Amino acid sequence: MLVKHCVISALTRSTSHSPSSSSSTVLRRQQFLVRTLCASRTHLPKLIKAMSSTSEADAESVLRTVTPSLDPERHKGQAGKIAVIGGCREYTGAPYFAAISALKIGADLSHVFCTKDAAPVIKSYSPELIVHPVLEESYTISQFSEEEKRKVQDEVIGEVDKWMERFDCLVIGPGLGRDPFLLECVSKIMLLAKKFNVPFVVDGDGLLLVTNSIDLVKSYPLAVLTPNVNEYKRLVQKVLNCEVDEEKAEDQLRSLAKQIGGVTILRKGKTDLISNGEIVKSVSIYGSPRRCGGQGDILSGSVAVFLSWAQQLKSGPESPSESPAILGCIAASGLLRKAASLAFTKHKRSTLTSDIIECLGESLEDICPVS
Amino acid sequence: MLVKHCVISALTRSTSHSPSSSSSTVLRRQQFLVRTLCASRTHLPKLIKAMSSTSEADAESVLRTVTPSLDPERHKGQAGKIAVIGGCREYTGAPYFAAISALKIGADLSHVFCTKDAAPVIKSYSPELIVHPVLEESYTISQFSEEEKRKVQDEVIGEVDKWMERFDCLVIGPGLGRDPFLLECVSKIMLLAKKFNVPFVVDGDGLLLVTNSIDLVKSYPLAVLTPNVNEYKRLVQKVLNCEVDEEKAEDQLRSLAKQIGGVTILRKGKTDLISNGEIVKSVSIYGSPRRCGGQGDILSGSVAVFLSWAQQLKSGPESPSESPAILGCIAASGLLRKAASLAFTKHKRSTLTSDIIECLGESLEDICPVS
Repeated sequence: MLVKHCVISALTRSTSHSPSSSSSTVLRRQQFLVRTLCASRTHLPKLIKAMSSTSEADAESVLRTVTPSLDPERHKGQAGKIAVIGGCREYTGAPYFAAISALKIGADLSHVFCTKDAAPVIKSYSPELIVHPVLEESYTISQFSEEEKRKVQDEVIGEVDKWMERFDCLVIGPGLGRDPFLLECVSKIMLLAKKFNVPFVVDGDGLLLVTNSIDLVKSYPLAVLTPNVNEYKRLVQKVLNCEVDEEKAEDQLRSLAKQIGGVTILRKGKTDLISNGEIVKSVSIYGSPRRCGGQGDILSGSVAVFLSWAQQLKSGPESPSESPAILGCIAASGLLRKAASLAFTKHKRSTLTSDIIECLGESLEDICPVS
Repeated sequence: MLVKHCVISALTRSTSHSPSSSSSTVLRRQQFLVRTLCASRTHLPKLIKAMSSTSEADAESVLRTVTPSLDPERHKGQAGKIAVIGGCREYTGAPYFAAISALKIGADLSHVFCTKDAAPVIKSYSPELIVHPVLEESYTISQFSEEEKRKVQDEVIGEVDKWMERFDCLVIGPGLGRDPFLLECVSKIMLLAKKFNVPFVVDGDGLLLVTNSIDLVKSYPLAVLTPNVNEYKRLVQKVLNCEVDEEKAEDQLRSLAKQIGGVTILRKGKTDLISNGEIVKSVSIYGSPRRCGGQGDILSGSVAVFLSWAQQLKSGPESPSESPAILGCIAASGLLRKAASLAFTKHKRSTLTSDIIECLGESLEDICPVS
C-alpha cells in the first residue's frame, strides 16, 4: 500500500511530462513502478487516473487492468458476447477476422450478422463462430415493390432485435460493403443498439455510413469509431469542415470527438491516437512495418472485447476513472501492436493477418499471464 | 487375482469416505491401487461397484474400463457408429464439434443429419464426417399445404429411419435451432430411436424440445440429458415445479432424474453431477477456466461414444454394475476436463473449442495408453 502511494505521488508530480521527455529519469522510474505494480493483476484505478494527463498510455498496464481474472465459477457468456455486423457478397474475410479475434482474446461467444451469400463462406472459415445469414443487398430485392422492401427491412431488423440485448458489444462495418439497402438496415441496427445501450465499434464501411449521417452516433458515449487515414480525412472534412492538420493532430482529434458529442475515436496510424473529446491518449509501442489488409478488423474486434470487459469493471468496487471506451481502445491498440510485432518476427515480409491473429494469445499471455 | 481381491476388500471397507476426506491414507491407497490395476486394461466391474457409494467418480478408471482394446481382428464400425441430429441455417459449428469429437475419441463412423443449408458448410469443416442434408426448416416449406408439409415430414423421418438401426448412439440437439417444424421432425426421430432401442444424448435446443415434452424421454433408460446451468434451471422448473437449490444439488438432481423415469442427467458446471434417479456421481478433476462456446458439444459427442462402448461391455463376461449411461457420462466428463486443461496449458486465454478437440487424443492416451 505504501509502495502504491509512493507511485501515485511520483506520478502526480510528473504529470507535466510530455512524450518527448520520455527518456527522463522520473518517467522511466514511473513506468517501471507502474509495470511492477500492475503485474500483480490488481486493478489500479487511481494509478490510471494519475496517468491520464500524460499523452502516451501505458497500454500494457491498461490491458492488465481491464482483463478479468479467469474464475472457474463463471459460466459461458460471462467473459463476453460479441457480434459483428458485416460480410456481404464481396467481403467475407473482414468480419471473420474481427469475430475470431474477439474469441482469441477471450470472449466466450462471437456472432456475425451478414448477408445470405456471405454466411456459408464465413461459417466455413471457422466452426467457432455463430453466423446469421440475415442481411440483404439491393440486388436480391430489386424486383420488389417499396412495400415489400420495407417488409424485408423489418424482417432483417427483427432478426437482429431478438439477439440484441444479449450482446456486450457490436462491431459494425467489417466487410459491410456500400449497398444502399444494406446500409439503411445497418443504420437501423445502430438505433436498436442505442435503444438497448449496447456499445458499438464502427469501422470500415460502417464509417462511411456514419460520416454521411453523423447523428447516428452523435452524443452516444458507447460509440467508438476506428478510422484509418482516409476514413479519418473524410470525417474531419465532413464534421470540422477542414483538412487534417498533422501539426495539431491531438487537438484536432479532440475537437472532432467533441464535435460528435463525446464519442471515442481511435485514429489509426504509425502512432494510434485516442480521444473522447476530453483527453487524448497515444499508443506507439511495438508494431510491425507490414500493412497487409485485415489488421483493422483485428483491432475493431479487440476493442469490442476490451471495452466490454472495461464496462464490467465500471460496476465493480474499483471502477477506473477513464471511460470503458478509452480503456478498450488503449488495450486493443497495445495488444494488436504486440501481436503484429511478434508475427513479423516470425514471418517477416510474408506476415499475413491470420499470422497476427495466431499471435494474439501469446501476446496477451506475455502482457497479462493467467497465473 | 490376489491383488484384485485385496483392492476390492480395501474399497469395501472405505466406501463411507466422502470426497472431502480424499486426503486420507485409505483413500489415497485405494486410488493408487485402482490406477495400478486399471492400467492393465482389465475390466473391473466389481471395483466400479465398490466405488458406487462415494460421490466423486474415479473418471480415469471408468474411462479405462469402458474403452475397448484395439483389436486388429475388429472391422470398421465395431468401435462405434455415432449420429448427430443437428445443424441448421444458423448453427453449423455445434454439430461439427460433436461429430468430430466422437471420431477423435475412437468411434469408427460419425454421421450428421442436418438441414440442406447447413450440410455443405459442415461438410467443408471436415471430410471425415458423413453429412446427410435431410432436415427442413419452416421457411423452406412456408408455401406448402398442411398435407404437403406432412409429406415432407414423412420423407425426413424416412431418410433417418433407413439408417437408424446401424447407429450405436445418437446425439440430438447440437445446433438444432428452434424452428417448430424442425423440432417436430426431431421429436419423431426420438420416437424412432426408442423403437430401435438406440441410446441418445440430448443437448442444446434438443433440451428445449424435451423440457416442453418430457414424455419424449420419460422412462427411456437409454436417454441422457446434458443440461448447462440455464437448461437445467428450465428442466427443474418444469418437472419439479421449483427453483434450483444449490444446497441440495445432489438430492435435487436425483429427484429430477427419478421424476423423468430414470433417465440419466449430466448437470454441467464447475463440478459435473450425474444421476439416473438412484445414484449421484460427481466429476470435478482437472478443467479449464475458459468458457468458450462449443465445449458442451464435445461433451455430448463424447458421452455418445463412451456410452456405446459401455453398452458393449454389458453383453460381455464382466458387465459393470453401473448403467452404460452413467459410465458414459463419467468417462466423457473426465476426458473433456482433461483435454480442456491440456488445451488451456498450451493456449491460455486464447483457448478455443477446436484446441480442446485437438487435445482429446493426447488426453485419452495419457489416461488409457494403447499399449
